[in-house]
Formats: sequence, C-alpha cells, structure tokens
Amino acid sequence: MTDYIPVFEPVFNGNEKKYLNECIDSCWLGANGPFVKKLEKDFAKYCNQKFAATVANGSAALDVTFRALKDLYKWEDFSEIIVPSFNIISGAQSCIYNNLKPVFVDCEDKTWNIDVSKIEEAVTKKTKAILVVHIYGLPSDMEPVIEIAKKYNLKIIEDAAQAHGQTYNGKKCGSFGIASAFSFFSNKHISCGEGGIILSSDEELLNKFNYYKNLCFTSNKFVHNDLGWNYRMSNLQAAVAYAQFENIDKVIAKKQWIGNIYQNLLKDIPCHLSPVKTNYANNHYWVFGIVINKDIKLTAKEAMMKLKNDNIETRPFFFPLHKQPVFKNLGILDNLKRPVSESIYDKGFYIPIGLNLNEDKLLYISQKIHELFR
Amino acid sequence: MTDYIPVFEPVFNGNEKKYLNECIDSCWLGANGPFVKKLEKDFAKYCNQKFAATVANGSAALDVTFRALKDLYKWEDFSEIIVPSFNIISGAQSCIYNNLKPVFVDCEDKTWNIDVSKIEEAVTKKTKAILVVHIYGLPSDMEPVIEIAKKYNLKIIEDAAQAHGQTYNGKKCGSFGIASAFSFFSNKHISCGEGGIILSSDEELLNKFNYYKNLCFTSNKFVHNDLGWNYRMSNLQAAVAYAQFENIDKVIAKKQWIGNIYQNLLKDIPCHLSPVKTNYANNHYWVFGIVINKDIKLTAKEAMMKLKNDNIETRPFFFPLHKQPVFKNLGILDNLKRPVSESIYDKGFYIPIGLNLNEDKLLYISQKIHELFR
Repeated sequence: MTDYIPVFEPVFNGNEKKYLNECIDSCWLGANGPFVKKLEKDFAKYCNQKFAATVANGSAALDVTFRALKDLYKWEDFSEIIVPSFNIISGAQSCIYNNLKPVFVDCEDKTWNIDVSKIEEAVTKKTKAILVVHIYGLPSDMEPVIEIAKKYNLKIIEDAAQAHGQTYNGKKCGSFGIASAFSFFSNKHISCGEGGIILSSDEELLNKFNYYKNLCFTSNKFVHNDLGWNYRMSNLQAAVAYAQFENIDKVIAKKQWIGNIYQNLLKDIPCHLSPVKTNYANNHYWVFGIVINKDIKLTAKEAMMKLKNDNIETRPFFFPLHKQPVFKNLGILDNLKRPVSESIYDKGFYIPIGLNLNEDKLLYISQKIHELFR
Repeated sequence: MTDYIPVFEPVFNGNEKKYLNECIDSCWLGANGPFVKKLEKDFAKYCNQKFAATVANGSAALDVTFRALKDLYKWEDFSEIIVPSFNIISGAQSCIYNNLKPVFVDCEDKTWNIDVSKIEEAVTKKTKAILVVHIYGLPSDMEPVIEIAKKYNLKIIEDAAQAHGQTYNGKKCGSFGIASAFSFFSNKHISCGEGGIILSSDEELLNKFNYYKNLCFTSNKFVHNDLGWNYRMSNLQAAVAYAQFENIDKVIAKKQWIGNIYQNLLKDIPCHLSPVKTNYANNHYWVFGIVINKDIKLTAKEAMMKLKNDNIETRPFFFPLHKQPVFKNLGILDNLKRPVSESIYDKGFYIPIGLNLNEDKLLYISQKIHELFR
C-alpha cells in the first residue's frame, strides 16, 4: 500500500514567499495592492484581453459577470442563457442570482464539452448569451459557437476556470468572451487558495465588474444606487497568484507529462479517457478523466470506492445541471434528457493529477485501475 | 505641510511572515488549512462562543448568517429584521438577498449606536431578529436589547465588525448573538486584507454556515439541494488574521492611546467627539469620530475637503440606510425620518487613527482641526 495520493497537489516553488513577504513589508494586503494591479494587467495581456478585474474566486467571477452584462446590455429578467449541462453549479447559480434563466445543453461524449450541434435548437427569442465552459482543460469548439452567436446576436461568456494558458487554434482561452472568468482555486493551474479574475476588452464592462464586486460603492462614499457583493481579492492572494502565473508553462508541461503517461498506461482499459487532443487543441489535463464503457457493469461510484481503499483519491464527474434538485425545486427545468451528461456522470470520474506525482506513483495508480477490470 | 496621513494604517509586526511562509512550505493555501482551523477555534473561544466559520469578508459573514438563520428557523419570506439606520449597507443588503425586510431604527446622538428606546415600536408580528451593530468600536447597549428580544421572542445577531476584543459590561462583543459576524478587512483591529468570521454556540447553525459558504456542497459531491455562495476564506488569509489576533491587545492599546490624545487635544472644538466611555464600556476607537455642533455652519463635507488640502485623510459617516437610493428603488422604505442618523451624516466624519501615528502627527491633525473653527 502506498501513501495517500490526493487527486490534486499544488506546488509553490517560485516567488510565492518573496511576494508574500513584500506584501507584509509594504503593509499592503488589501484589494487595491500592487500585486492585484500587476496580475490584472499582465494576465489580461497574456489572454489577449485589454482589462481585468480580480475577484474573490471563480464563482464570484461569474456572479459579477452576469450582473455586469445584464446591467450594461439591459437584459430583462428571465432572459435566457445557454449553459452546458455538464458543469459545476456556479454558472447556472449566477444566472439564478441575477434573475436570468439557465437553459441547459448536453455535452459531447468525446470531449465532455458543450455539444455545439445542439446549441441552436436551444436558442429562443429570449436568449442573450452562451456560457462556454472549457471542461477539464480541453477547449470547447469555439468556431461554431462564434457563428451561432453572430447569427442570433448573442454574447459569448467564457468560463475558463479549468483552462488557464490553454489555446483554441492557437488563440488563448479567455480571449473569446465579451467576458471571461477564471478561478485560482487550490486545484487550478494558477492557484492561490481562493481567487479569481474576469477579463474583458470592454472598458465599460470592466467598470461594472469593479462596481459590483465592491458593494456598488460610488464616489459619494456610502451612498448606494445598486446592490453588489464584497467579492474583492486581496493583495496577499494576488501575490501568490502572480508567482504561480510566472510558472504557468511549467505547470502545464508537468500536467501534460502526467497526462501522456496515463494515456500510455491506461490505453487498454475498457474506458474512454480524456482525449490527447482535438482538431483545435492539445489537452492540458486540468484533470484526467475516465469514463467506463457502457457494457462494463462497474459504475463510477464503485470504481472510486475501490480506488479509495487503495489510498487513491478520485472525484466524480459533474452531476448534470438539468437534474439538480435545487433547480427542480426552483421550477426552472424542462423534462428534456441530456443523455450524454447523464451517462458520463454515472460512468465517469477523474484520477490523481497532482504536481508532485512521479512515475512510481503513476504506475501504482495505473495498476490499481487495471485491477478494476479484471 | 506634512506627508499624507491616511485614515487607517495597519501594522504587521508579529508572526505574519512566519505563518505565511508556513502556508507555502506546507502547500496548504486553501479553505480547510490549519490556520483556518486554529483561527476558528481560538477566536470563538476568545469571544466566548463555541463555534466559528471563517468566511471571505464581513459582508459575506452577514449574507451567510441571514441565510443560515432563515433556513434553521424557517423564517418566511419578507420576515422583518430590525437594523440600525446608521450603518454600512452590508447588513441590510444581506436581508434583501435573503428575501428578508430590513426595518430601520434610528441611532442615539451620543454613541451613534442603535437607539434602544426606539426598537420596541419597530417590532411587528413579522419581526424575527434584531441586528445589533457596535458602531465605531463602542458596544451597543445590550441589556435592553436582550430584554426586548426575550419579550418578543426575537433572535439577536451581532455585527461586531468594528468591535474585535471589545466588551459590554465585561462580556465580549460577539458573545451575545445567536450569530455574530466579524470582518478582518484592512482597516480592522484584526486585519488580513479581506476576511471574516461568524461565531455561534449552536452547532446546527455552524453546519449551516459551512454549508452556505461552500456552494451548498453535500457529501454527494456536485449534487446541490440549495444555492449558496463561494465565501470561503483561504489559509493564507487566516495565517495573517491569526498573527494579528495574537496582537489584538497591543492594537487596542495603541488605538486607545491615540483616542485619549485626541480627546485632550480636541476637547475645546464645537463638536461632539467619539465618547471616551459609556456606562458599560470604554471606547476602543475603531475610528475616532467628530460631529460638528448644529449651530456651526460648517458641514462634514466642507471640513473634510479642508483637511484633505492639509494632507489629512478623513471619511464621511455612514449614509443613513433609510435614505439609500437603492432601497427607495426597491420599494422597501417607509417615510419615517430617523433624525439623528440624518443629522450626524451631515455633520459627522472621522479622522486618522492609523497604528503608525505619533504625537507629532496627532498634534498636526489636531491643529488643522482647530483651524476649521477659527
């Protein structure tokens, strides 16, 4: 038996300490500190957008994004937003919190990204935007999305929380949205515990991000015309995020090294693995996913339980948003099935991809996964 | 002319760097880290409560508090919460975000805290709780509040964001509420840039805090029965907050030293100053406030502008909540006047109380304030 192998493990071997100590020396820990400014400026540039607003985390990024867009474009209450059904709850929750209606579109069975062939049939007169989520580090297919958005005059919002530094046909993820949201949560390519950022090239939108993330303070201090949130990110968090950002290429290289080893070691199991690449991108492996073939009786839950007994941590796939009890209770669901997201939830899970993994551990994990199918 | 004197200035001369470096060495920056746990345990104990949940900031603390209480006690939508009219917007906003109605009660002209003699007339059959805010570092008069709460079966919630370590008749602020919210914002007695904590002695309530602050995740990962927020506080933030907490007595002593000097230097100006003490507490001077006498023509805005020209930063008093444009637009206001909070907003402001202030600077500030009235 090996030591416990966590599904994620960040490393902090760059300028993290140096920058944190600079925060303390300068007594600047708050939201307008120099690392906040540097991170906003340089991360926007890296993603080929003009502006950025840091926020407290990735969910906060989406809350603020939808509020700002709704305000700027005067979207009516209950306007519809196309959201992939295979995703964490945050994007759909942000719609609800802003009186917008998420409309769920199923995912593809190969990439687990939104099925672009099914977007158009979900568009109605009320549709205002498409939320694109680059699932597990592989970009969504942007060209068809852009075409549909043009045809129906929809905005594109990118949830790039799983795709820092990733590209689609050579263009950075995060560069396609009128607004693009990132997370710097502990398990992300850039990690500072909790943190996030929203990018845009529209200055009016940037100003709205900064307004809504800061309790809608105005120049007339303590007088409020709107309600927002305190979703500010501190200089401390930005200091670590900046140091991590400096190392993004190394992180991606290590994740791809792990991903490629898994591809070799696991090529014979009766499962669909995270794709090596698509026509438009190489996988960055934010996570390495496995979907057990339908003809195998084993469920994801059973596989995960067995691996847990081998000291290997795993995580389930996202629970389909169109099946969430909370949305059922809110009465916003139709009765349509999204069969792909339903079946990959039953059969899918992801395996360790921590940055400290070595070949021995990868061999051990692979051996235990093979044993599931014996 | 002196160098610019900010209204607040934190100091970080304790274990801040040491603890931050420990976070990096342990690779534990996320929300369940050891400093988070230590801070929750020890700060709860310090405030004589059993449990604590860290959160992203003070506003987040109130959002989560109201959601958790509403859930646990099954408060109906539009239940009423008594809220002081002289306060930052956060508490009232948290009511709105939880479909509760804030009912505003005026403040006293001496302490600027809620006027306890006016609470009872604001109680209706729909009232569920009283939000007590210890304004500017001086406790509200808790005994009458407790009596009214008992009489009408109301919960007491403390917003102690301005009163870390303060006591009411020897009992810690934060120990009175069924839930008590604190902020660790940059200008607070305990400061980590952005951060907050909620205390309670009710374990069921603690569990609800942790549920709602963490996107309502359940043991069935990614299945959600409710909507929450990501309001988690990182281990990084907790590391600094913990180091600051270790030094709370020194911070309070320095603030009281500054406050007492101001009391002497400013005793002759035609203003009401932050009280030295009340029957139940000595002032901690989170801020040092000045309210210009009504018979003096000078407004707070004019005084602040003049002091700004002397390189002295000041801040206006809170804008009365019952006059906020956003609440007017939401249609939740009555037409009642709260004359004290209205008049102290016109005539009140606060002056520098940074932890690096020395006697020379205090003399300079005092001299410039005297010049306002010549």
